[in-house]
Amino acid sequence: MSDPLDLRLLPRTATVDSAGRLAIDGVDLDALAREHGTPLYVYSETELRARAAEYRDAFGPDAVSYAGKAFLCGAMARLVADEGLHLDVATGGELQLALHVGFPAARIVFHGNNKSDAELLLALERGVGRIVADSFDELDRIDALVSARATAPARVLVRVTPGVEAHTHEYIATGADDSKFGFTVSNGSARDAALRVVKSEAMHFAGFHCHIGSQILVLESFARAAAVVAGLAADVVRATDVPVPEINLGGGLGIPYTADELDAPTIAEFGRETRANFADACATFALDPVPALTVEAGRSIAGPAGVTLYTVGTIKQIPGVRTYVAVDGGMSDNPRPATYGATYEAALPARVTAS
Amino acid sequence: MSDPLDLRLLPRTATVDSAGRLAIDGVDLDALAREHGTPLYVYSETELRARAAEYRDAFGPDAVSYAGKAFLCGAMARLVADEGLHLDVATGGELQLALHVGFPAARIVFHGNNKSDAELLLALERGVGRIVADSFDELDRIDALVSARATAPARVLVRVTPGVEAHTHEYIATGADDSKFGFTVSNGSARDAALRVVKSEAMHFAGFHCHIGSQILVLESFARAAAVVAGLAADVVRATDVPVPEINLGGGLGIPYTADELDAPTIAEFGRETRANFADACATFALDPVPALTVEAGRSIAGPAGVTLYTVGTIKQIPGVRTYVAVDGGMSDNPRPATYGATYEAALPARVTAS
Repeated sequence: MSDPLDLRLLPRTATVDSAGRLAIDGVDLDALAREHGTPLYVYSETELRARAAEYRDAFGPDAVSYAGKAFLCGAMARLVADEGLHLDVATGGELQLALHVGFPAARIVFHGNNKSDAELLLALERGVGRIVADSFDELDRIDALVSARATAPARVLVRVTPGVEAHTHEYIATGADDSKFGFTVSNGSARDAALRVVKSEAMHFAGFHCHIGSQILVLESFARAAAVVAGLAADVVRATDVPVPEINLGGGLGIPYTADELDAPTIAEFGRETRANFADACATFALDPVPALTVEAGRSIAGPAGVTLYTVGTIKQIPGVRTYVAVDGGMSDNPRPATYGATYEAALPARVTAS
Repeated sequence: MSDPLDLRLLPRTATVDSAGRLAIDGVDLDALAREHGTPLYVYSETELRARAAEYRDAFGPDAVSYAGKAFLCGAMARLVADEGLHLDVATGGELQLALHVGFPAARIVFHGNNKSDAELLLALERGVGRIVADSFDELDRIDALVSARATAPARVLVRVTPGVEAHTHEYIATGADDSKFGFTVSNGSARDAALRVVKSEAMHFAGFHCHIGSQILVLESFARAAAVVAGLAADVVRATDVPVPEINLGGGLGIPYTADELDAPTIAEFGRETRANFADACATFALDPVPALTVEAGRSIAGPAGVTLYTVGTIKQIPGVRTYVAVDGGMSDNPRPATYGATYEAALPARVTAS
């Protein structure tokens, strides 16, 4: 706790006054903790909006969705709409929240490997812009629901598993062939799924989606995924003579949680490299027209904008072993440390030494 | 899912009819899922009461508390009172729940390594029977609160860390020297804490408490803990000339979750061996009077009495790799598999083949 805190890990508005008091967006954190109690999530609106803007600049005005799983509430959904991003939801609850605050349905992307009939029907009836279909089971359900309820056809992105191993923790790597998510490319399932969507009267084929993992710090992983999906797209164009309107390369850009991770790629670098690699992949497979490149960003928008405030309780010193400092939070507010050993920096917001 | 289900893993009232429909306490599980929705926790009152009775038989009428962290709601607290057990709580919320349904305060045991002033004050004002003190920080707080609020003295069990490595997963082993819980025996902290409680006018010394871990399947671990704590007790008696009224050896008896764990020790075996080992340890250290032996039981009462019902959604077959069966639950209803790889048996309650 006595090590200097590197302010680059905090929102860009973080300031420390001469007494060591830490503020974000001009609001004193210690005062916030006293006013609202702890544990308390605090997000910098300035940082959230700045990062949304960086993504727009890096990928273009209509190419980015915010992944609600990173952090979602009504105010956040309104901010995402305001900043002109699309919104990814992954449960009926997130979908209801977005619709409730008036998020435009056409800009909602509905994810999930286990969508229920009730969730799919809600999405169809409200005109959700993209349903990311994850399995043949789900294609069956969409076909049946659209026929039975006579809704407009679903706009479907086919989620594929490109067989790319992202350099991240195995718990959050999602792109390998043995994944509960998506249609496998290597065994022909992804191609079969696309052909089925193209032929179905209940669906419009919107393109492909893939997602190789979370907290990825090596951009080359995205280049390999782009190559696999571009090859798949060319294969489907040959088989159907129907263009592939969009390829969504997912998200998963890593962020620094600790001072030794500060060399994580920036959003601008992620955009520059990924757009170039995507263009190369489309050229290699002679895709014409070139599909629109889209991405989704959750952690890399919300993470660096947020801090969690706790109150220190019991301090237990075990001489020669270690000192335990207990706080009033745990797995219920942050499952990452217990689930896969994630680490964070900590500081006392009324007594910060900045580095 | 098609393997036969060993009914010994279920509550003793489990029955399967000729059509393969599974019932517990005479209630059809498939019907319960349809009536209440899923995910749904289902507990057998018969099994809960039977296991509480087995504990009373194994350790004596006033020697057992139920550890609310295993499963707690108003009905469960009333059942525990009904069955004549004490009740362990570990947060202010659990304490409020117990008091709210009229659980006798004198039979409540208040645990936790990070109790707040507000929680301790509630316990003191309501006359909670035992506060398990976990650190010098907490002893400071109890001293200050009793003086400032002029409550009756706290009855304090001193929680000690006996330096015993239980044979269980490192995430749930709590008895080693490097633990956030309790006073270390090996470095003299536990002895110092007991002497301080004996001398304090704000506290009555109720004895020692230790807890070496969870899901323990090797009873010998408890014998080693008993020996360490009996030795500590003898040391404190010599130093203070005050008897040690009670030694609580904690809980943590393991239960079978899968068919290959069915040889887990029974409650009766746990009682027989632990009472014998405890008597030996007290004799070895010539403790006279012999402290009362108490234990706490959570999982081994609630676990075998409960099942969780889910609804199967997407089924994804990856030829040559595996088949994923998605259900409508996850870490929010059961963190054990993701946190430390715990395994369970599964079956379709409308189509069970019993073994």
